[in-house]
Formats: sequence, structure tokens, C-alpha cells
Amino acid sequence: MATDLTPSPNAPPAEPCAMVVFGAAGDLTGRLLVPALYNLAAAGLLAEKFALIGLARAPLTDADFRAQLGEALHRYATGAVDPAVWNALAQRFFYLEANFEAPDTYTGLRRRLAEVEGEFNTGGNVLFYLATAPEYFGSIVDQLSWAGLTREQTHDWRRVILEKPFGHDLASAQALNARLRRDLTEEQVYRIDHYLGKETVQNILVLRFANGLFEPLWNRNHIDHVQITVAESVGVEKRGGYYDRAGALRDMVPNHLFQLLALTAMEPPTCFGADAVRTEKTKLLEAVQVLKPAQVAAHVVRAQYGAGTVGGHTLPDYRAEPRVAPDSTTETFVALKLTIDNWRWAGVPFYLRTGKALARRSTEIAIRFKQAPYAMFRATPVERLAPNYLVLHIQPEERISLEFSAKVPGPAVHMAGVGMDFCYNRHFGGGRAIGYETLIYDCMMGDATLFQRSDTVEAAWRAVEPIFEAWSDSTADLVAYPAGSWGPQQAQELLGRDGRQWRGADHDSCG
Amino acid sequence: MATDLTPSPNAPPAEPCAMVVFGAAGDLTGRLLVPALYNLAAAGLLAEKFALIGLARAPLTDADFRAQLGEALHRYATGAVDPAVWNALAQRFFYLEANFEAPDTYTGLRRRLAEVEGEFNTGGNVLFYLATAPEYFGSIVDQLSWAGLTREQTHDWRRVILEKPFGHDLASAQALNARLRRDLTEEQVYRIDHYLGKETVQNILVLRFANGLFEPLWNRNHIDHVQITVAESVGVEKRGGYYDRAGALRDMVPNHLFQLLALTAMEPPTCFGADAVRTEKTKLLEAVQVLKPAQVAAHVVRAQYGAGTVGGHTLPDYRAEPRVAPDSTTETFVALKLTIDNWRWAGVPFYLRTGKALARRSTEIAIRFKQAPYAMFRATPVERLAPNYLVLHIQPEERISLEFSAKVPGPAVHMAGVGMDFCYNRHFGGGRAIGYETLIYDCMMGDATLFQRSDTVEAAWRAVEPIFEAWSDSTADLVAYPAGSWGPQQAQELLGRDGRQWRGADHDSCG
Repeated sequence: MATDLTPSPNAPPAEPCAMVVFGAAGDLTGRLLVPALYNLAAAGLLAEKFALIGLARAPLTDADFRAQLGEALHRYATGAVDPAVWNALAQRFFYLEANFEAPDTYTGLRRRLAEVEGEFNTGGNVLFYLATAPEYFGSIVDQLSWAGLTREQTHDWRRVILEKPFGHDLASAQALNARLRRDLTEEQVYRIDHYLGKETVQNILVLRFANGLFEPLWNRNHIDHVQITVAESVGVEKRGGYYDRAGALRDMVPNHLFQLLALTAMEPPTCFGADAVRTEKTKLLEAVQVLKPAQVAAHVVRAQYGAGTVGGHTLPDYRAEPRVAPDSTTETFVALKLTIDNWRWAGVPFYLRTGKALARRSTEIAIRFKQAPYAMFRATPVERLAPNYLVLHIQPEERISLEFSAKVPGPAVHMAGVGMDFCYNRHFGGGRAIGYETLIYDCMMGDATLFQRSDTVEAAWRAVEPIFEAWSDSTADLVAYPAGSWGPQQAQELLGRDGRQWRGADHDSCG
Repeated sequence: MATDLTPSPNAPPAEPCAMVVFGAAGDLTGRLLVPALYNLAAAGLLAEKFALIGLARAPLTDADFRAQLGEALHRYATGAVDPAVWNALAQRFFYLEANFEAPDTYTGLRRRLAEVEGEFNTGGNVLFYLATAPEYFGSIVDQLSWAGLTREQTHDWRRVILEKPFGHDLASAQALNARLRRDLTEEQVYRIDHYLGKETVQNILVLRFANGLFEPLWNRNHIDHVQITVAESVGVEKRGGYYDRAGALRDMVPNHLFQLLALTAMEPPTCFGADAVRTEKTKLLEAVQVLKPAQVAAHVVRAQYGAGTVGGHTLPDYRAEPRVAPDSTTETFVALKLTIDNWRWAGVPFYLRTGKALARRSTEIAIRFKQAPYAMFRATPVERLAPNYLVLHIQPEERISLEFSAKVPGPAVHMAGVGMDFCYNRHFGGGRAIGYETLIYDCMMGDATLFQRSDTVEAAWRAVEPIFEAWSDSTADLVAYPAGSWGPQQAQELLGRDGRQWRGADHDSCG
């Protein structure tokens, strides 16, 4: 039966709490947070004892705030909105006009929290959600601490959710982590990578470790290489100001792509607990062979899009996009060849690529198995064996597919590459979750498995640091690709030099 | 593009030949042989230089014969019949009234063959097709030989196709083989097991050996056990006379089930050639651990159906079926636990079952992989991991399915067994071959890969011989099952004693 958010059998409602959202007038709150909270409420997964206080600069009343979020919900909801559910939820939303740097804000928040806690019996549990620009993270947490708001009592909890980016390089990530640790324990910090809210991403671990079928193949004896693609079809859109400083590598690789990499390649954790899983992820990222700056040119392709057409829409040169420097050398595409220097993976290349203005929106992990020996087919008309891929499709479809060779019907031994699919939504119905539901629920339940631990974040930055160093010296290797393509020729050559190629985009569908 | 028989790209027409069918007025000729020949002709896979002489007892003219086969074709054709193709084919069909034991028949045949060869330029190649009761095999071949019809010249060939049964036990099979060898070389004998004409059966080898994905898992390290089911939903129908003497074991196991077993479990052959493939099949059957008569009761279940309902139709007790002895102790169901005593399979049970009047018509090979370790899921709501199966569905759908565990969407780690499918017909279209096309074509091309060699036949009888011996002593262990069930409780217990169970019937469909 399809529902907005298929609840797991027997999942209890989350623990009572007040949720405090910094940056409550921003895009993220309306687009992701409110639809996710609505879905949780509709599925009975939100506590009855719940309230939300939103903080932002704008002078809004509670009624304005509720109306604004109600509009957002109707725009971004993943299914039909039940007015009764929404109205009951909206009555628990409150607004506080705030300057995030003024101590007054925090004394005001403390007062308001006490009122709300009294009214809704939230039991002293508070979830602080920092949906602000990252430069505020440190000072908000400092001020929350000074105002005594992060101190946990025996029977309640205080947790802080941060949205990426967690620093813009290793040093800044370390500094941010150090500052957070001054006021909070590691257990209080929930760093969101919204990719981990996706069911297919969570399913990677289940697929690998709950099945006797895959794990025996999951190593250098049987896997030829792995391709991880996070392709966006949109250009930089309105994010030119941020993006032109960040670039594709910083924006996507140490977080989203490395999370996919870690889940795909990590060793089995001893259990599904937060520390066991995150320890294995960190170990995996620490095993990524750090490039020497001199190796970067041979292992990393960086590129910027030029004008072109994507799905019928024309995109300008990246440099002509709003708030992008006209002489920008920021990459909008990056492809990397990584090796993981452990017993499971030594010798197996991991090819990662991500970019904007590409031919199609697609996130997938393609596991390419080693070729079967050809000798048996010498005397047949078969000229080559089709490659075997297991593909974990994350976006836009949540799907698992297996590609293999089968005999073409007929009297001679001819073969064709064929495939089979498992469509997540077709099987389980629904599939209309926003992706944040699980993350918010887990934080309310104190389960940090799907959040990034500080050492994981730092291990990721450490692995890409030499690339930034190498790039800072020269921009000679920045190449161009037309919007609507699959990136520059050099990205093909990155695999071509190894006698490999990117898996072609398929158009199968879960329809 | 769906055609009656999807021709393989570039498959040439078969070699010119005359085909001589003994038993041409029988059921097999009309139901299987003629539709298959028609499909080959329609697909351009039959030589222009082709003619057919049918022999039977009935006094028919060529015109009668053609009309009779035309009727059969319209009843049994796998697609629309193109009158132009059929008329061109029928003009090549001739009839000879014959007594298979009379030497006259063979001198008459020699004369008629010479005429037909002259008219159709078939080049001296002759395919003798023995669609008769098996008791005629020896004498027909003897007489063909005495008439000089089996002698090959430098540039032509003489081949003999036999339909099973190839003996009714080891001694009779050895005797038949010895008699055939007196007149023919092994290379001239083509023993048909029509299961090997099925695309999915042929695909087993391609699936296993053209893919890097399956073979590494295909051994006792990763496979828990294998189930091979050949279930018929019909009762004994009009075959009571033959069947009551044969029984399920003799009728199905050393031929069809063992062919599926051999293809599933054999080592990779050095090439796809006839001798390489058949040598590996024989080796596999020779590695089947031969039961001691005292072990039979614990390893083999035999049962006979009682009255019941299958798919809305009522079936009587087997003993009340036409031409079945009222006190018959013939089994209509058999289940076996076999072990294969080689390095690949030692310790992996192979459970085989076949029977009539079962709940559903279904032929499938289910590979059950070993369970993943559960420890990781101790702290989750997951109580047990779904089993991993790779299922090769042979009948009624030609399909490959993979069953595994996936995460149920939602905030808690719940799992469900899910599956993915590859449907042969949906992918390749058509799929309307009769199953004999490839076999006839291969024989005309001199490719014996899909035919049974004498040593394979004997190895199969050798493996089941002790069961007949044990059964001949007593019928105490013959149990009953109601028509429309999946066999007797004892067949469940055969696996239950090992902590296993038969895979449930699924109702997925390639629709």
C-alpha cells in the first residue's frame, strides 16, 4: 500500500522534544524540513509531545510563520496534504525574530523554550537544527552553550544537527570540529549528509551484508573496478555566489561521493550501531590512497561547462552565470581515479565523477565484475562477452540492476547483454519520502548511524587535500565541456588509459 | 522483433539432407516435429535441398500424409502459419507405408530415398528420425544397416535421432548402446532429450560461464543446496499403459532431471564443442554418490497420487486411471537427496523432485546461497534474513530470478525478501519455438552438443540403479499424496530433516 512515508512495521513514534531551527525562513526549512516533519506526523512517527521554534531575522508572527510554511508544504509535499494533520502540526510551530550573533537571542530562546516545554511537555529534550550558512555554526553553538542550552540533564538530551559544508578544507574542518567539541560531546553532534537519508543509500549496507550472494564477490578477486557517478543536469542556478568559491570537488566529493564510496567499499561492521558503522566508514576513507601533488594531473580531471543544451534548455557558459566571476577557474565537473589500499581492494580502481550541466540527472554506483574467461567461446560466433555490472541506482530512480550475458534464442550460440531490475518504489509502493524523515527521526531517537562523525569528515578532507594543493599552483589543466554532455573527453580518457570506459547511461525505467 | 523463431544473427541454413521419419503417423511427428520444421523453414534455417519421407503402418498417400500434417501444424503451430511457407515445405513430404520389421520396407526405402535425393539434390545426407516405441530402435537400426543405408560416403553423412527412453535400466541401456554401436559410430547417434531444446536450459551454460558474476559463487563455499523441481499438473492421462510400467523415477530422473543437474553442476568445459560439454556432463553424473540400497529409504521418497483437484479439474486415484493396474505400486512422484562427491560440491545436497498431478506445472532449478551471518543485525528489529535464491525457471515461463533481502523503506532497519527477474520472452520477443528446432538444426549441422552420449546415459542409469533394487524388495515405503498438492509430507521431511525446506511456489509472471 503506497503511503506518503511507508512506516516500518512497529516503528514507534520518536521521543518527545522541542526542535529549534536556526534559519527557519530559509529555503531548506520550507523545501525539506517541513515536508519531512509533515510526513513523519502523517505516518505517526512524530511524538505527540513535540513543538518547533523557528528563528530568523525577518519580523514574523507565529501566524505568518505557519502560513509561510503551509505554503511551502503545499509546494513541496511528496503527496496529498491532509489538512487535519497539517493543522495539528502547525499549531506546534512558533517563531522568534533573531540575530544569531546577539546574546539576547539566546536568552530570549531560553525563555521561549521554557514556555513551549511547559505547554507541550517535551521533557527537556531539544534538537537544535542549524539550517544557516556554515559561518554561523561556531558562534551559534558557542552562544547556545554560554546560555546553558546545550547542557544535558540526567533525563533529557540536547542535540545539534548541522548541514554541510563541514569546513572547506582539512584545516577549517578540524577547526570547526575542535570548536564544536569545546561546547558539545561528539554524541551531541549530528552532521547531516542528506544522501544518507535516501533509502537506496541505506540499502547498500543491507544489500551487502544481509545477503550471502553479494559479499563473497565483493573484493579484488572478483571486482574489476567501481564507478560512482553523481550527475546533475542543472547548471549552477542561483548558487553562483557560493558555488564559484567552492567548486565541484569541494561541494560534492568529500561528502556525498565519499559517503557512497564508504558504504560501497567498507568492511562489515560488527553491528548496525552508530559507532560500529561509522568506524568502518572512517577506516575506509583512511585507506584511500592519498595522491601526491605530482600524481594529481594523471588521476583527476577538472572541467568547467560551456554553453550548451540540456534536455531542451539552453545553458550559458558557466562564466556567464549570475554571480560567477567572468574569469572563473572553478571546476563544475571533476572525475577522479582512486585506489583503496587495503586487503579487500588493493588494485581495484574506483572512478568517481560528478558535475553540473551534464546530459542527465543520475546518481549511481556501478560495480563492474571481472570478465569470465573467453576461451570456452572461441569456436562459437560469440566475439566478446558482455560486461557484468551490478548497478545501485540512487537517483532519479531507486533501483538495483544486474547486467549479464544470456544466450540469444536460436540454434547458434549467440549472446546478448541483458539485465534484471529491482525497483524500490514499484515493490514497496510510496517512495515519496523527502529523504530527511529518517534523519530527523533518527536524531530524535539518538541514533547517529546515518550522520557523519568528526573523524570521518576529517579523513575525507585529508584524502582530497593534495588535489586542492596541486590545483592552487596552476589552472593549466582546467578543460571545458559543453553543457548537456557527459563531461570532457579527458574524463573518458581517465578510464580509457586503463582499457576501461564509463558505463553508458541506460534508459530503463521502473515506470 | 518477435518472430516464430528468432534466428540467431548470421546462422546459416542447415545442410541439405533427406529426413526419414519412422513413426510418421504418430503424435510426436504432428505435435513437435512438423511445427519445428515449419519454424525452421520460416526462419530460413532449413536447406532448400531438403525432403522428408515418413514411414508408418497406415496406408496413406503422399497427399493424405501432407493433409494430416497440415492439420497438425494448424493445431500445434507456435504462431500464425504462412501458407506459402507451409505449401513449399509440404511439397517435400512423402509417405511410405511400412512394417518396421520387414526387410522389404528397407529396400523400398532405399529406392524411394534415391528418387527423392535425385529430385531435391539432398547430396546423400540422411537423417533417420526414430519416433517409434523404443522396442523398435534396435531392429530399425539393424535393418537400416543391413540395407546399407547407414554407411557414410566421403562427402555425405547418415545420422540417427532416437527419442528416449534409452533403456529402462542400466543393463538394457548398455545392451541398446552395444547394439547401436554394432551398426553405427557414436558420432552418428543423436539421443534427444527434449529438455535440452529449451532455451533456458541451454542458457544455463551461458549464464554460468559467460559471466564473471556467477561462477565464483558456484560451489560449496557459497551454495547451501540446490533444488531441482519438474512438476507436472496433469495426471497420467492416456499414457497409463507405458507409465505404469515405467514410473516417475525411470520416466524423468535419469534423463530430464539429470540433464538439468549436469548442466547446473558440471565443471566448465574447455569449449562449447559436443565432446567437451558431454565429457563434463558425464563426469558430473559419475560423481553422483551412488546410494547403497540400505540408504535409499532415507534419501528417496516415492509416492502415488490419490484423487484430488488440480486447477479446478478433478483427478481420480492413480489406480483408477485408464490402463493402470488397480493394485499398481508404481510411483507417480519421487523426491531424492543426492550428493555430488567432487571438490566443487562435496557437502552440498541436491534435492530433486518430480511428479504428476502436482499443484502447478513448473520446472525450475533453485540455487540457495548460504546465509549471511546474522550477528550484525542483533540490535535491529530484523529477526531473520531472507534466503538468497537464484532460480532458473524453465517452465512454464522462461525466466531467471534472484531473491535477496532489501531494506523496507522507513526509519528502522526492517528487511524484506525481494526479487528481480529476467524474462526471456519479454526481452528477446517471440519465444514461440517448439523446442525441437535447435535439436533438429544441430543434428543437420552435425553438432551433437545437446544430445546425449552413450556414456552419459549409462552414468545416469548407474546412479539410480540401487533405487530400483531397493524398491524391488518392498513397496512398504510407497506413500500417497492428493492430486493438486506438492507431493507427500515425506518429501517436505526429506529437507526438513536437514533444517531446510522446498522453496515456495511463486506467482510472479513475465506477463
